Order: sequence, then C-alpha cells, then structure tokens
Amino acid sequence: MAMSKLGMNEEKLSPDNRDYVGALASGLDVIMAFDPQHKEMTLSEVAEQTGMDRAKARRFLLTLHALGYIKREGRQFTLTPKVLALSYAYNASNDHLNVVEHYLHDITAQLGESSSLAVLDQQDIMYVVRSPAAHRLMSIALSAGTRLPAAYTSMGRMLVAKLPSEEQKEWLKNVFLEEFTQHSIVDKPAFEQMLVQVAEQNFCIVDQELDLGLRSLAVPAFTFDGSLLGAINLSTNASRVSHQTLIEEYLPVLREVAEQIRLHTK
Amino acid sequence: MAMSKLGMNEEKLSPDNRDYVGALASGLDVIMAFDPQHKEMTLSEVAEQTGMDRAKARRFLLTLHALGYIKREGRQFTLTPKVLALSYAYNASNDHLNVVEHYLHDITAQLGESSSLAVLDQQDIMYVVRSPAAHRLMSIALSAGTRLPAAYTSMGRMLVAKLPSEEQKEWLKNVFLEEFTQHSIVDKPAFEQMLVQVAEQNFCIVDQELDLGLRSLAVPAFTFDGSLLGAINLSTNASRVSHQTLIEEYLPVLREVAEQIRLHTK
Repeated sequence: MAMSKLGMNEEKLSPDNRDYVGALASGLDVIMAFDPQHKEMTLSEVAEQTGMDRAKARRFLLTLHALGYIKREGRQFTLTPKVLALSYAYNASNDHLNVVEHYLHDITAQLGESSSLAVLDQQDIMYVVRSPAAHRLMSIALSAGTRLPAAYTSMGRMLVAKLPSEEQKEWLKNVFLEEFTQHSIVDKPAFEQMLVQVAEQNFCIVDQELDLGLRSLAVPAFTFDGSLLGAINLSTNASRVSHQTLIEEYLPVLREVAEQIRLHTK
Repeated sequence: MAMSKLGMNEEKLSPDNRDYVGALASGLDVIMAFDPQHKEMTLSEVAEQTGMDRAKARRFLLTLHALGYIKREGRQFTLTPKVLALSYAYNASNDHLNVVEHYLHDITAQLGESSSLAVLDQQDIMYVVRSPAAHRLMSIALSAGTRLPAAYTSMGRMLVAKLPSEEQKEWLKNVFLEEFTQHSIVDKPAFEQMLVQVAEQNFCIVDQELDLGLRSLAVPAFTFDGSLLGAINLSTNASRVSHQTLIEEYLPVLREVAEQIRLHTK
C-alpha cells in the first residue's frame, strides 16, 4: 500500500514525532504573526506575538529576511510581496479557481453584490476567491485568506451541515457559540436544529447574526466529478435586500452559478 | 544602534551562518515546488522538484501535512487553501493595497482593459494586485504572485529604469536577453538605450516583445510620502488598440490613477 510505504497514516503527524520539523512550523508562525494589528513589528514584538524567546524569534526573522520574505527598516520588520509567491503556488495549482472567480464576477455584475467561495478550516471559514461589489471600497477588505467564525456565517453553516455525521458531531463538540448581535443563536440545541434545516433545504441564510445589517446567503459548490469545492455566497445589506428577496430572487441566481461552476470544472 | 543590537547588517544572512534556519528555507521550497505543471505530486516528484533526497522531502511533506498546508489522497500531495492564510498576512498588513485595487478597478471599468500593480524581484516582476478585464476568462490566469521576466514587461522596465544607478548596473550585468518574439530587444546597448528613454519619459510601452498581440503600458506608483509602491500598468490587445491610442488616450488615464493612488495613501 502506498500509505504504508510512505509510513503515513491518515492521522496527522504529532509535533512530538521525530519526523516533525518544528523549525518549519515556527517559521510559518512568524509570517502569520503579521496582521492588520501588527503590520510592522520589532524583534521583541515578534517574540511576544509568537510566544518565542528573542533568540529564537531573531533566527527566524533573519532567515526570512535572507530569503526575501521579510524586509527591515531600522528596528521594524514587515512582510514583502514575495509572500504572495507562496499563495500563488496554491492558486496556480488549482485550475478550478479561475472558473469560480469568473462566475462569482457574474453574480456581482448581475446583482451588484459581493460574492465569495470559502472552505471550512476547523472552527473558521477561510475565503478562497472573492468578487467584491464594484466600487464599494469597504467591501474589498475581505480578501483571500481572511478567516471568519464558521458558526456565524452562511458559508460556514452550509459547510458544517454538509460534514459527515461523525465529523459534524466532533465540530459541534468544539464550537463556541457567541453573541455577536442580539440575533445570534447561542443555544446549542437551537443551533443543531438550524443545521438540520440547512442540510434539508441545501442553502443557508444568516441574517444579522455576525454583524447588524449584514445578510448573507450560501449554497454548496461542487466540481463536475462531485467533489465539494466549498460554499459560495453573496452578502448584502439588510436595509437594501429583504429576507424574502434573498430567497425569491437571489437564491436562483446563486444556484445557477453553482451549476455553471459544476459544468465548467470537468 | 538598533542594528548592532540585533546583530544584523543591511547585508542578508548567508546560508552558512549558524543563525540561518535551513529547515525553514526547505519547507518553503516544498510549498513553492507546486505550480501549474506540478499541481499534485508524489513524494518522489517533490524530492525531484526540490532537489532533496526522499527522506528529507518526506519529513517536510509530513510536517506541512500536520500543519494543514498540504493534503494527501493516496500517493498524491496537493496544497490546501490554508496556504492563502500566509499571503493574507501580507495583504492584511498593507493598507495601501485596497486603495490600489480600488483604482485599478477604475481603469478596467473605464477602458475595459486589465490592469495590475507589480514589484521588482531580482530579474522578475511579481504581480501584487490585479484587476482583470471583466468577463475575459483568459485574463484571470495572471494572479497575485505570478512572475514574469522584468526585461520584457512594461512594469519591469519601468521599475528597472527607476533603480538607483549602482543597482541598475548590477541588474543589467545579470539580465538575460531572450528573443520571445521577433520584436524582442536582444542587443544589450539597445536595451540600455531604451532604459534611458523610459526613465526620461516616465512611462514604458512594451509592444509585442513578450508575446505577439500583447501591448502594455506602465507608469510608476508612489505613496503620498513618496515611497515607490511598484509600477501600475494596463495591457491590451495589439489588434484592438494602437500604439498611438495607448499614448494619447490610455496614458493620461493611467497617470490619473497613479495620482489618485498617491493622494489616497496618506
């Protein structure tokens, strides 16, 4: 068997396994430590953000600097655009993303709303492709790689509803229900009931549970051979688009786009 | 001095320095080994692509798998969307990119042409932000992180023309002039002469030197405080838009966008 030849189980390698390269994990942690609240950091700040001691943080900063991923001005370190080459490796190795992007742009052209594809990563969703509503500067802030809590997004709930039963149980065991707004479902039985309904209807609407004024609708997206690409959504302003309009007018558009994606990902 | 405190020179750390973490470099090499020609690879193929022996390639694959950056089906390894989280760290830590994206979309809306921002990385340019021409599926294939030879792109030549004299000399020493089409400049003195002209006029047109039918126009883009963000361009089809139209009608639009970017990156 190929698996045993590689000496791998489906199980993930544990960090205390002798084959686990801790230095790689730490280096990636240093890259991930940069975010909107930490755009530039000193050595001490990187150490603090990553929980490393200064000597360790210094070695990783120096190595990333040598590799061109980090630049330095005085005591301040920032990421360079070379970091984009890493995500390019992902984008370039996924033919389907071009197709998805093309059809998400159709939604934005037709309805004037932003649209996205996201995947589930533990308790978060991660945006993979995004079509921002034209000329709404604010809407651009969500980009590929942005994470949001799966429990309070339409794409997240749709994807959790699609999980195999055992995985869904495990997910529900770890979910943290949080009152983002007065509309947020925080009762576990009510949350599970909602998931059953989402699975049955095969679409999901989240209405101002993450943010007041934000209404979002999601459906699953599959490739032609039936593998789940993720969920696609459109999000809109509650004051412009009613719940009823979402279901009667927007849902058919989203479903048609999912079908076009399926047909064009042979 | 902050620099000596950190024990760093402006010089980059050499790979034989004891502070250099080779394992981090190797792990990033494994991610970068995936590309359009290598979307999924076996352990042996990863070893071959990266020049590592199998035992080493296996440790890095297993670690990236444990960290969620790589998934495995049978003997095949592919990157996961989690790789996007790395580039998100870059995007999220750069306020200016939203502004750039917004104004590049203006070019596409106004002229119907694709537009980009790229930076120089040694002999290549790397795309950082891209606004694809609406509904041209082909045009989407270039995404953030895509690399092209600086010597045969309008953004590359513009950026090389802007290099400080010593750096430009060094760049010219290493440049490889290649006949991509019958229009490509391959004579070194002619190439240097062209750079002088680009610096003087402060824009650059490359007319079918990289690809027959491809015409591109670039200008430099600065932030409000005068630091160079990169070059912005628009690219078009030679059969639709003449050299003269590029200069008379498109160049003023591109320059206005550069000015808007400057004004909005305080």
